[in-house]
Amino acid sequence: MNELFSNRISGVAPSFIREILKVAVDPAIISFAGGLPNRDLFPVEALQQATNDLFNEDGKDILQYSSTEGYLPLREMIACDYRRKGLEISVDEILITNGSQQGLDLLGKVLINEGDEVLIEEPGYLGAIQAFEVYSAKFKPVPVGQDGMDIDALQDTLKTTQAKLIYTVPNFQNPSGISYTNENRQAVADCLSKTKTLLIEDNPYGELRFSGEEKRSFKAFLPEQTILLGSFSKTVVPSFRLGWIAAPKALMEKLVIAKQAGDLHTNYFCQRVLHRFLKDNDLDAHIKKIIGVYGKQKQVMENAIKRCFPKQVTYLNPEGGMFLWVTLPEGMSAMTLFEKAIKDKVAFVPGDPFYVTKRDLNTLRLNFSSVDPDVIEEGIKRLGKVLHELLDN
Amino acid sequence: MNELFSNRISGVAPSFIREILKVAVDPAIISFAGGLPNRDLFPVEALQQATNDLFNEDGKDILQYSSTEGYLPLREMIACDYRRKGLEISVDEILITNGSQQGLDLLGKVLINEGDEVLIEEPGYLGAIQAFEVYSAKFKPVPVGQDGMDIDALQDTLKTTQAKLIYTVPNFQNPSGISYTNENRQAVADCLSKTKTLLIEDNPYGELRFSGEEKRSFKAFLPEQTILLGSFSKTVVPSFRLGWIAAPKALMEKLVIAKQAGDLHTNYFCQRVLHRFLKDNDLDAHIKKIIGVYGKQKQVMENAIKRCFPKQVTYLNPEGGMFLWVTLPEGMSAMTLFEKAIKDKVAFVPGDPFYVTKRDLNTLRLNFSSVDPDVIEEGIKRLGKVLHELLDN
Repeated sequence: MNELFSNRISGVAPSFIREILKVAVDPAIISFAGGLPNRDLFPVEALQQATNDLFNEDGKDILQYSSTEGYLPLREMIACDYRRKGLEISVDEILITNGSQQGLDLLGKVLINEGDEVLIEEPGYLGAIQAFEVYSAKFKPVPVGQDGMDIDALQDTLKTTQAKLIYTVPNFQNPSGISYTNENRQAVADCLSKTKTLLIEDNPYGELRFSGEEKRSFKAFLPEQTILLGSFSKTVVPSFRLGWIAAPKALMEKLVIAKQAGDLHTNYFCQRVLHRFLKDNDLDAHIKKIIGVYGKQKQVMENAIKRCFPKQVTYLNPEGGMFLWVTLPEGMSAMTLFEKAIKDKVAFVPGDPFYVTKRDLNTLRLNFSSVDPDVIEEGIKRLGKVLHELLDN
Repeated sequence: MNELFSNRISGVAPSFIREILKVAVDPAIISFAGGLPNRDLFPVEALQQATNDLFNEDGKDILQYSSTEGYLPLREMIACDYRRKGLEISVDEILITNGSQQGLDLLGKVLINEGDEVLIEEPGYLGAIQAFEVYSAKFKPVPVGQDGMDIDALQDTLKTTQAKLIYTVPNFQNPSGISYTNENRQAVADCLSKTKTLLIEDNPYGELRFSGEEKRSFKAFLPEQTILLGSFSKTVVPSFRLGWIAAPKALMEKLVIAKQAGDLHTNYFCQRVLHRFLKDNDLDAHIKKIIGVYGKQKQVMENAIKRCFPKQVTYLNPEGGMFLWVTLPEGMSAMTLFEKAIKDKVAFVPGDPFYVTKRDLNTLRLNFSSVDPDVIEEGIKRLGKVLHELLDN
């Protein structure tokens, strides 16, 4: 069979996270490894109501095939929300996808030839690395820190590359939780405006801000070259797999062809349910509730870290999102820590999968959105104990 | 923007059907062009019940992220149904996809390098042509007729190709409605068993048989080389976008990697609803109802054709499915007929898009599943009138 596989898939390994987490199935393990929203916040009753209303009023229509682009009134809502934020994006520029992950796949499909260069944040979102790796992209990492992208490094990289794409998560980045300042966005845009590189602004967590001020979208700084990816997974529910791409019309035409060849269209039933839910409910109020819970959980984790971790261990303080990024003392391997921590029944994701070249790193990602406060306390205590043991050796 | 597009997408044209049907939006037009199941047969109440039961019992769980492979009990049901039909397929060999169209996309992704040869039925399913075209496959058409694939043509083609894949819809094929006899399947399998070519048996309509006897799956004739694609779109509802791939384990491993990189997993909420619906309802009885309606509509169409079409126009008589395939007299273009028919407010799909090389053909596809009997009568009458006019000129 092996000789039949395409070149593009032969080199792609099974997900690192999937593999390492196979050891973490023990229910006694406290896991900060996930990337899940908190299930206690899912709007179960409101979604049930929306579903019943639709079945009662439009039962047959919601069950038929539909259009590749997606349900028009849902796309209108997305366009309207952008308008509210000062971005003019027409309905024709919006395609509903199976989560924003499919947005990445479609962009890879219509843009990347084998060996094409793609700039990516380092550390960066594993799912983007996987999506573009399947199209045999050649990654050029650009470091990100507390304020955003390293502009010197970006300038240096642009001198020697003709990258088609640059991938960013400028708000509460996965994995590091950092956000780009407005000044950093402007500087990134200034660099890119001299190139043909398209910038992907992936924004799954943007609404989940619990401190600081909202930043401006790259679309405002670099309108012709920016592609926006959005998702309802973190603000409503993930199981519906509903996200979108907002892209300039010439690109959208190709994306629609690829989407049609790929799966005809996104689940129409759930597009209708989501639209009805959004029409009949106050999403802003719902998001405020999520922010309240995540903000508190982040604070509990931070306080516990201050109390339990050795002083040599540092972390970045996120203003929103779901993740907190930890840096161990130089030379200490997060993989080694992971192996010891699992024995003490606590799990996290070591930094390695978020880098395209480096390995055996001293960074790790902690998720606070899906773990209750008292469990966070206990988990951080366990992790602190392992850290102290490792450092004392 | 154009210079940024990947080679794979640059050559792919927008869907021919999509384009030609833009002229058919007038509601006064009777359309035999669609490929839609009959919406009056959707099990609305039973699906509403299943959904409510799930919301009431498991509200949070059905809304969270889930596994790439799909909901295990749903995959078990699919394996069980294969077992009932005498095919041993393990749960590990089944992946839930966004409709079987995504199955085609994933197979293209993990198997096809640029220029790889793919054998395809002629006429053949447009969606398969589109899916593999995106991966720059080189198509080798093999004609199909009333009894299945042209074995001489297949043997000839195999002499000069090293095709990785052969794509078939052996039951009530789209577009021609034909089915492969058991003898034809055996002969196809005999040819392929000497090669490494993988056979795709796409079977969206297999359950919808209204006459004749059930045929054996290619999996029984060619077990190591057969990949099965299935779908709930024609037996339950299409808007859920739920299908599956059943493939040997070595291939499945790669498909799961591609699926994860492509969209993480299929809509989990609808997987749960579908599973609950199947658990609490008698699918066989529901399918029997569909068969009753489609069988009748097929008969009405056939009778109307006999009455209204010129004798020189012939058709293939399907034993199931949703389509009836018409052949015009030699030299008469179905595209020309289409243009005239639209003016008389009746639409169909000309044969052209179902062929990978030939153009301006004298064949066309009529759909009978989504049109009511009295409308079928009227539509065929209109089409007969146009045919007579064309022939009399």
